[in-house]
Amino acid sequence: MKGFVFHGPGQASWQDVPDPGIKEPTDAIVKVGVVTICGTDLHILKGDVPEVHPGTVLGHEAVGEIVEVGGDVRTVRPGDRVLMSCITSCGRCRFCRERSYGQCRGGGGWILGRLIDGTQAEYVRVPYADLSVHLLPGAVRSEDAVLLADIFPTSYEVGVLNGGVRPGDTVAIVGAGPIGLAAIATARLFSPERIIAVDLAPARLEAAHRLGADAVADAREAPDQLVADLTDGLGADVVMEAVGVPESFELCTRMVRPGGHVANIGVHGRPATLHLEELWIKNVTITTGLVDTYSTPTLLRMAAAGRLPTGQLVTHTFPLEQLEEAYDVFAKAAETGALKVVLGGERYEVVVPTA
Amino acid sequence: MKGFVFHGPGQASWQDVPDPGIKEPTDAIVKVGVVTICGTDLHILKGDVPEVHPGTVLGHEAVGEIVEVGGDVRTVRPGDRVLMSCITSCGRCRFCRERSYGQCRGGGGWILGRLIDGTQAEYVRVPYADLSVHLLPGAVRSEDAVLLADIFPTSYEVGVLNGGVRPGDTVAIVGAGPIGLAAIATARLFSPERIIAVDLAPARLEAAHRLGADAVADAREAPDQLVADLTDGLGADVVMEAVGVPESFELCTRMVRPGGHVANIGVHGRPATLHLEELWIKNVTITTGLVDTYSTPTLLRMAAAGRLPTGQLVTHTFPLEQLEEAYDVFAKAAETGALKVVLGGERYEVVVPTA
Repeated sequence: MKGFVFHGPGQASWQDVPDPGIKEPTDAIVKVGVVTICGTDLHILKGDVPEVHPGTVLGHEAVGEIVEVGGDVRTVRPGDRVLMSCITSCGRCRFCRERSYGQCRGGGGWILGRLIDGTQAEYVRVPYADLSVHLLPGAVRSEDAVLLADIFPTSYEVGVLNGGVRPGDTVAIVGAGPIGLAAIATARLFSPERIIAVDLAPARLEAAHRLGADAVADAREAPDQLVADLTDGLGADVVMEAVGVPESFELCTRMVRPGGHVANIGVHGRPATLHLEELWIKNVTITTGLVDTYSTPTLLRMAAAGRLPTGQLVTHTFPLEQLEEAYDVFAKAAETGALKVVLGGERYEVVVPTA
Repeated sequence: MKGFVFHGPGQASWQDVPDPGIKEPTDAIVKVGVVTICGTDLHILKGDVPEVHPGTVLGHEAVGEIVEVGGDVRTVRPGDRVLMSCITSCGRCRFCRERSYGQCRGGGGWILGRLIDGTQAEYVRVPYADLSVHLLPGAVRSEDAVLLADIFPTSYEVGVLNGGVRPGDTVAIVGAGPIGLAAIATARLFSPERIIAVDLAPARLEAAHRLGADAVADAREAPDQLVADLTDGLGADVVMEAVGVPESFELCTRMVRPGGHVANIGVHGRPATLHLEELWIKNVTITTGLVDTYSTPTLLRMAAAGRLPTGQLVTHTFPLEQLEEAYDVFAKAAETGALKVVLGGERYEVVVPTA
């Protein structure tokens, strides 16, 4: 089969790789139908995620059809259409039992496209299939469901829920890429007073506005001052970091009010400076997190009911074999305006709604 | 009257200052009976708290007798023995209504010995007396109560409660000065599996052991490795920083398990490095905080019932007028073995219990 293989920082290609097979009785083999590329994949290509070894097929987001299951798999069978979650879980370790599936110590966690071959291929082996794939309701299109493999649960759990967004809050979101946009969409579920989106790219700020940001700010134009002006000088109740560089994390800590929350969603490759000389007295809470995907069943129900704006995040579609081109368009988002790129789905015309 | 006046970094003296008087109808004037020195006062003397202007009488912990009250004070009257809390609160602002008294925006918060003259004097003016002093039950000695002005509620709220200590937890506490020791004592209220105390000074580690630490570690001898060894390599559930330097905060972030909590209690004068390249994926929660003192009434009830080991933290007593000597003994704790120094109380013989 073909797969998209990482060969070290800056190097990857769509190439022949061996077909995957069942290795454990809890495995499933899935024929990939729809797949997408994550900002985290770009971090891997930059070398920010050193545990990914050359030779690994990338990708941790996909929808597909079960073609084979191991002898212990009970809840899915060949022919089922399933969402492959970015998180695989053994279900048995202490962390899984505490619903911290992302921290699974039984061989799961974020392993697809990181520690084992991932979903950017024609077929993929999914360990612990019973707990690691989600049977898809007929009402959810694969092109929408694939956004629930990672970005929607990540933004919701690591951003909105860890940040503790509540009605009436001022929420600032730094980074209006797919993760930041999904954070805007899911923060709105808690009826905040206002959402302020910060980014460098005008196109992303426009998308933020469409998805429900009440105010947008160019990251170069003192967004912390805008937040202060809107909050009587206090700062935002909840600030989310959705970029993954020290500068944006540090901006977040300047935008939070006393007693407020900074929820880091970004994947970081470098340390940040924590200004404890200012923060020690401010009663702030800072959270980090890899998604656990405990919210995925709920988000799937909401998607089936049409309550998540998944389609608004997709700007480009490609056939599966054009993964290299799709990476190129996704990596050059500043030029191409790419948000989420989807491969292998129905070749629908992407219509970016205007405000 | 006499008071202990800050004159800029490294300079302070016990000297004549004007008597305080009622300025607002919500004020009380208190004759100081028993007072103590906080590690924060040493941070002020080092210049770590730049908002303290030369000329300020230091001190934010004391017990005394009300001698005069303004016309609006309703709950205390002359002759009452009261605890002066380090936190003053207006009771009316948004933060006070959310019980975040330390963040009071109505003129309170930590103001004594910081923004206005403090308690290291013969008399002190306490604003918002109804909400800022605590009437003392007869069963609590002033020498014990004074430890509830700051260190016990600080360790309990900012360390134990913010850190979310739960039964069965492994708790690591970096810094075994008075704050760290009070954190040990109050963490034990939640029945953790083990408490590991880290410090540089053998005498402090001995005190930690007496107060209930199950294991102690020299900060120079890879305490993070000890914590890893005791927790199957995972790290501690809750780690508290009770020193106030970047190195100890960074140690804390290396000792916490995935999904664990780092509660910063220390007063910091410099930024720390936050290793987001390791922490982004670990689901950690980091909290900072100035105490709110919402727990002070509860802690006073516990002290009256003899359930807090306040006396074990006091190593030196002095008459009030020996404040300069007391500062000297407290600042040179490495030589003197000082934990908490108490001035103006009964000149009891300090007996340090042996294990």
